[in-house]
Amino acid sequence: MTTSRMRTEIAEQPAALRRTLDSLLSQVPDIAGLARDARQVLFIARGSSDNAAVYGHYLTEVHTGRLATLASPSIATTYKKRLDLTGVLAVAISQSGRTAEIVETLDWAGDCGARMIAITNAADSPLAAVAELALITMAGDELAVPATKTYTTQLAALAVVGLGLAAADPTGPTVGAAVSPTGGRPGGPGIDAAELRRAPDEVDRLITATESSDALPAMVDELAEVTGVVVSGRGLAFGTALELSLKLNEACYLRAMGLSYADLLHGPIAVVDQSTPAILAAADSGPTLPGTIALARRVTGAGARAYGVGGGPELAAACRHALPGPALAEWVAPLALVVPGQLLVEALARKLGIDPDLPRGLRKVTQTD
Amino acid sequence: MTTSRMRTEIAEQPAALRRTLDSLLSQVPDIAGLARDARQVLFIARGSSDNAAVYGHYLTEVHTGRLATLASPSIATTYKKRLDLTGVLAVAISQSGRTAEIVETLDWAGDCGARMIAITNAADSPLAAVAELALITMAGDELAVPATKTYTTQLAALAVVGLGLAAADPTGPTVGAAVSPTGGRPGGPGIDAAELRRAPDEVDRLITATESSDALPAMVDELAEVTGVVVSGRGLAFGTALELSLKLNEACYLRAMGLSYADLLHGPIAVVDQSTPAILAAADSGPTLPGTIALARRVTGAGARAYGVGGGPELAAACRHALPGPALAEWVAPLALVVPGQLLVEALARKLGIDPDLPRGLRKVTQTD
Repeated sequence: MTTSRMRTEIAEQPAALRRTLDSLLSQVPDIAGLARDARQVLFIARGSSDNAAVYGHYLTEVHTGRLATLASPSIATTYKKRLDLTGVLAVAISQSGRTAEIVETLDWAGDCGARMIAITNAADSPLAAVAELALITMAGDELAVPATKTYTTQLAALAVVGLGLAAADPTGPTVGAAVSPTGGRPGGPGIDAAELRRAPDEVDRLITATESSDALPAMVDELAEVTGVVVSGRGLAFGTALELSLKLNEACYLRAMGLSYADLLHGPIAVVDQSTPAILAAADSGPTLPGTIALARRVTGAGARAYGVGGGPELAAACRHALPGPALAEWVAPLALVVPGQLLVEALARKLGIDPDLPRGLRKVTQTD
Repeated sequence: MTTSRMRTEIAEQPAALRRTLDSLLSQVPDIAGLARDARQVLFIARGSSDNAAVYGHYLTEVHTGRLATLASPSIATTYKKRLDLTGVLAVAISQSGRTAEIVETLDWAGDCGARMIAITNAADSPLAAVAELALITMAGDELAVPATKTYTTQLAALAVVGLGLAAADPTGPTVGAAVSPTGGRPGGPGIDAAELRRAPDEVDRLITATESSDALPAMVDELAEVTGVVVSGRGLAFGTALELSLKLNEACYLRAMGLSYADLLHGPIAVVDQSTPAILAAADSGPTLPGTIALARRVTGAGARAYGVGGGPELAAACRHALPGPALAEWVAPLALVVPGQLLVEALARKLGIDPDLPRGLRKVTQTD
């Protein structure tokens, strides 16, 4: 097996992202309309979509001034309790749009008073039907079990939701009403569609850069010898760490633990040792980068191995090996930062003799109640 | 080493819980006053305290009709962004009350419009000083690095916060204003202090029952042979699973992954195999129990080992070995359900030649920024 379906789908991401952004950026005014009274965003998701939601969570709080929450679907589906969700914008994320638990929880949120957005790759899905506004990712069919292009296009859709929230911002401390699909508030610390549109080209460049780097085969060889790894990142890059950890679980059967760098220091740092390396992901800039570099130095200083994904030359210098990262603003970087990690997972799975397209115990659509 | 400080502190929990409840139940009216306009609760915590917050999260949503959120301290401390937190009750939890990140984040929440409660074991701490209302746990000094009695007394304090929220409930769908520190709403599905007061005796009984069970030495022997384990639970028992996982990380250097049972099915189930067993925690009753039993059967059916903590005879029958659990209502059960797990961790650490009181790489107070 020289080329997996997963590898093919990784390479399809630039085109999938372009199609998705072309389609969804026109919906920013609709999102802004739905979000007009939203003081809070509730994300509803599981698995890779939940890791995408972690990105949405930080984007909402850092760049739109609203509190964000990851829903506990069991409140709706198992405990069957009602909450007061007036003033809440519920955003449900599901590739297939037919995971019953997610559909039921979005429907419940609407009953509890929330406005409802769906992010799904299937326009004709139950999830899209339940929502007031459906944002359809244009990833095309994804056949490999590990999500790649459906994950990054979900991130693109969440970035568009961020633009919509910023445009609807009633308080305006972070970004102003002047944010539009085509440009940011002049001079502000805000977010804008122009930077977002740069992501597909960066993904394209990163695939080439990663596959031509010496770090990729070196990391594959070394990770093939361990059974556990810690994956860490913070803030806007935390979701990337969780997603890379999940991929290493499901496609490489590695006991990977995805942790924020602060949580890592509260206990689990004890497991990082000679046989349990750390993989640290960060954007090339932003306020969480210094802490990530310091963590790499701490791991190395403790006699363990640190590997970098992104984070620029300073993180690379603090790590044993590092995969390249995107040259994108911190808030857009996650759309591309996961891609070197996807390539690592695909190559490591093959090295370990695992078919990355069809890991044991998993199906493409997981049904939970 | 026959008796560790950790083992001594485990045994101190019944008295610590009695002292804490005696002290804090009188503060229910103060909590209700502070929570009068709260439509949302924001928990601020790290490490074991964060696992306690997961309990608070489910308790708030299942039994007080309000949305709950776990704060991302980096929004306050690293990104330094303001959010609209009007109508939010912020509850910060820190054993020492002097983790700078937690103090700073509670202070920030107040600046953003939230009302502020602190739960801490140190009455003279900076965290208690910042809060509008301090709930002081009466655990006494805790010297072992792994938190035991400070964790369970935090759960007791959170249960008291739940009673306060229920008493302040403006909507009353779940519990009514008639809930008082001394009794529940007659005939309602609510929560009441009488059940909470039963917890210390149940902890006492469980320590004896666990240490006299054949399952404890059997699980210690078998877990000493593995390097990784999955720990799972759902809803009100999810925090217990996370806490047991953290303890296995920090005191036994096991690569333990704490996951909700739904999240486990979305990928990480692939790592459960002959050499990676699952530990499943559940209360003896409640709507999440059937799913936990089904998960144990699935794990066993896949050729892996499932171990139970609590969950009554049906979960025990579905598992290879099971530690006893408390005979307490689901909402109070977490105060005692973690105790058999603490005893397992302490015994396993000693079996592995680790001093449970002082695991490598950790100090009692973790400072993160």
